[in-house]
Amino acid sequence: MVVNADDFFKAAELDKPRDTMASKVGSNVTLINVMKIPGLNTLGISLARIDYAPLGENPPHTHPRATEILTVLEGKLYVGFVTSNPNQLFTKELNKGDVFVFPEGLIHFQFNPDYHKPAVAIAALSSQNPGVITIANAVFGSKPPISDDVLAKAFQVEKGTIDWLQAQFWENNHY
Amino acid sequence: MVVNADDFFKAAELDKPRDTMASKVGSNVTLINVMKIPGLNTLGISLARIDYAPLGENPPHTHPRATEILTVLEGKLYVGFVTSNPNQLFTKELNKGDVFVFPEGLIHFQFNPDYHKPAVAIAALSSQNPGVITIANAVFGSKPPISDDVLAKAFQVEKGTIDWLQAQFWENNHY
Amino acid sequence: MVVNADDFFKAAELDKPRDTMASKVGSNVTLINVMKIPGLNTLGISLARIDYAPLGENPPHTHPRATEILTVLEGKLYVGFVTSNPNQLFTKELNKGDVFVFPEGLIHFQFNPDYHKPAVAIAALSSQNPGVITIANAVFGSKPPISDDVLAKAFQVEKGTIDWLQAQFWENNHY
Amino acid sequence: MVVNADDFFKAAELDKPRDTMASKVGSNVTLINVMKIPGLNTLGISLARIDYAPLGENPPHTHPRATEILTVLEGKLYVGFVTSNPNQLFTKELNKGDVFVFPEGLIHFQFNPDYHKPAVAIAALSSQNPGVITIANAVFGSKPPISDDVLAKAFQVEKGTIDWLQAQFWENNHY
Amino acid sequence: MVVNADDFFKAAELDKPRDTMASKVGSNVTLINVMKIPGLNTLGISLARIDYAPLGENPPHTHPRATEILTVLEGKLYVGFVTSNPNQLFTKELNKGDVFVFPEGLIHFQFNPDYHKPAVAIAALSSQNPGVITIANAVFGSKPPISDDVLAKAFQVEKGTIDWLQAQFWENNHY
Amino acid sequence: MVVNADDFFKAAELDKPRDTMASKVGSNVTLINVMKIPGLNTLGISLARIDYAPLGENPPHTHPRATEILTVLEGKLYVGFVTSNPNQLFTKELNKGDVFVFPEGLIHFQFNPDYHKPAVAIAALSSQNPGVITIANAVFGSKPPISDDVLAKAFQVEKGTIDWLQAQFWENNHY
Repeated sequence: MVVNADDFFKAAELDKPRDTMASKVGSNVTLINVMKIPGLNTLGISLARIDYAPLGENPPHTHPRATEILTVLEGKLYVGFVTSNPNQLFTKELNKGDVFVFPEGLIHFQFNPDYHKPAVAIAALSSQNPGVITIANAVFGSKPPISDDVLAKAFQVEKGTIDWLQAQFWENNHY
Repeated sequence: MVVNADDFFKAAELDKPRDTMASKVGSNVTLINVMKIPGLNTLGISLARIDYAPLGENPPHTHPRATEILTVLEGKLYVGFVTSNPNQLFTKELNKGDVFVFPEGLIHFQFNPDYHKPAVAIAALSSQNPGVITIANAVFGSKPPISDDVLAKAFQVEKGTIDWLQAQFWENNHY
Repeated sequence: MVVNADDFFKAAELDKPRDTMASKVGSNVTLINVMKIPGLNTLGISLARIDYAPLGENPPHTHPRATEILTVLEGKLYVGFVTSNPNQLFTKELNKGDVFVFPEGLIHFQFNPDYHKPAVAIAALSSQNPGVITIANAVFGSKPPISDDVLAKAFQVEKGTIDWLQAQFWENNHY
Repeated sequence: MVVNADDFFKAAELDKPRDTMASKVGSNVTLINVMKIPGLNTLGISLARIDYAPLGENPPHTHPRATEILTVLEGKLYVGFVTSNPNQLFTKELNKGDVFVFPEGLIHFQFNPDYHKPAVAIAALSSQNPGVITIANAVFGSKPPISDDVLAKAFQVEKGTIDWLQAQFWENNHY
Repeated sequence: MVVNADDFFKAAELDKPRDTMASKVGSNVTLINVMKIPGLNTLGISLARIDYAPLGENPPHTHPRATEILTVLEGKLYVGFVTSNPNQLFTKELNKGDVFVFPEGLIHFQFNPDYHKPAVAIAALSSQNPGVITIANAVFGSKPPISDDVLAKAFQVEKGTIDWLQAQFWENNHY
Repeated sequence: MVVNADDFFKAAELDKPRDTMASKVGSNVTLINVMKIPGLNTLGISLARIDYAPLGENPPHTHPRATEILTVLEGKLYVGFVTSNPNQLFTKELNKGDVFVFPEGLIHFQFNPDYHKPAVAIAALSSQNPGVITIANAVFGSKPPISDDVLAKAFQVEKGTIDWLQAQFWENNHY
């Protein structure tokens, strides 16, 4: 196999605002990983642009194989992560140019608190294939669904509530 | 510092059934990690016993820094994990002596489907400090709580539902 | 290749006592590694059950690519490992439920000191393919044999003693 | 030590254009690494903003402990890296939103080909302490200087040329 | 702490023949590891010189944390290693300038087959602290000794033979 | 694939002096890496012999994926490396048997200061495929050449000087 510069390149259009209005959570993640740039293989890094609608959020999720470092390009973000046992929440309000770190495997989120203005962030991840697990989607929207017995007990609610949740449409905000 | 055999030892009483009835989820995890055996430092492994009440479960959780391999000592378990994007659920019914693997960072659970008999498992984790994030607890029981704006949108429910969930007691089944 | 739950599963029958009487050393190791569960690939962990006859032992051996953590399920074990230069021996008597660690690459053993009762242990290893080198077998039972000149000098015995040792049957207690 | 959200945060002002006119090479790198965010320790990632004057460049350099992934925020960049033995040059013209990868340890550069407009990039690095070795500076501007005998032979020039180069001011474009 | 060139240097006298006649096995290993060069810390490599008397050997041993690559400077060597389960022996006769690899954790040896001439080798190891376990010494010469019950069964000999072996002087050929 | 002893062996003739006179820099590096010994794959080490003519040098270079540890077999060497930002030079004069370490990714060189006698070194590298980037060759001798605009600004010289340098023959001293 002959390698050339295109193996290390993606015309990624990370400069273009993505549509966030069609998304229920009001955000849109464009991840450039090893599936898009084959030259990243074994190199342990990837890059993403995240667009947030006014009051939009990148909902609680984890990256099973990566730490994330993020900077705000436009707007403001309220961000946080929860430590593993015990479950302490660390949060921060970020302005343009601020930087925040979400350690590997921890549940984290970003929320745009502005009623009118969108926000944009660039995030880097310490794996060429970091993976993403959006918590609500993985728990209530997996195919096939997780047993409602298991979820009712875990979330301390009636099985009917779980069934209602599992009947919703759990769309993915990662592209 | 002089090292001796006790640095590699824990009188762990992993043979004793733990109380699972006082737990809302009906399970009890005893983890032997580097905090309990200092000689594990840098060695990348730890060991746990898990007790399950009849119909008890180890609810959906992740280990941010470890893969888990589990075998059933007593009873039966219905186990599963959800892959990262897309969210496919893989499940299996395990009998005594069966072995199952939960890859690093993925959401997984074990459930004892028997109405009358307890179950017991031994699990090993590929880190001396694997961490544990019980999903419902980290999302609804963190200190301080995550903003109900963030959670209402993520879980597609009313803020009142989130507030009710956050008011519950989210106990930890890991000791 | 489509992956499914069976790639992470082994009906391992780790609950069944193995025959230890046919073994000269009186032990029997059942290892569940990546050759038996393909989904373990790159995940860095494996699991084993070890059965010990009365006065049986898992003789001095090393795992070239793994640390081991062990707990006793039934009976008692006298266990130990030898540090690398200088060669200090660390030992411990383990009862049911106790946990002990054998650091990566060090020579270690387990011995059932009871005259009448068998013992059982579960051990986890920090590699999906830890390997095992039973010292006596590798030294005196390799195919082809190591030169008796080399071994006579290493063990400070006559070549005739080495030849006698090499003529024995060095069976493997790992399956 | 009590950890809090500030240990994972830097009010980095990565949104502010940096002065590139005072720099001979016409660029300015602002790196957010573990010295600025202590929570990055062991997490294997860092983030940088790079400003380029018109016709400015981030001159040939290496990161001894990291791969770099870069996206253009403003303007255009002509970028390249040289493979290790044999020394093949891979180059690409990047527009806003494009992404390019510079593999660990390889000599690479970015050049703003525009006569009038500045350029801006965000780059992520696969180490919390990637290091930077600006080739010309390390070779001709080290303290103390490298022997001119060594450099004259390596660069196939007269010692007087080396002496002249070593007498220049080799400023650092990283802050 | 201020670091300087001496932290990366050892006046090791690796050029001087070491005394091999006082050694029962007829060899002498001089290892330059992180205890001798502090700058090696975290860098994953070390270097050794090995002197062999005529008919001398570096007896069967393992490095628990390193692969070894060796070249012969003077004389000839008959070398080998035993694979982990099954125990296959790989051997080679090496002449001056030949190179051989002993994979991590495997039992290996070098023997000088010449009746009159010494041999010399340089070996590199893939750890700043590779460790060494000379098999006969660790098994029969540990402090305190391993139980003769354990060793008699492992080596298929009488306990009296083990006792006799343990009474020998097991000197270390590493300095 | 059946593996045998030859997969771990190279009749490398590392004992033979290499021709250094035909080389402009007066040195010759013979590297035994995974391309020459397939059994080195994943094992993280390689070995090299370096010959130096009187006043010859192994010119400033880096290994993008390895630390190097070197010992002098014959003659004397003046060696050094430059730290990453700031660019401090660490040097040492080495005599026969001395050992020196060049940390991963840093620019380093070896020079034989003797007017009449050759020098010889053995070096080990902490990768089975360490790579080598000879600075002058990679900067001025890449195929295709780096833009002279980029290099003129980086090296603070006229473009004509760069063009002259790029027109030289940049031979590789690694074989």
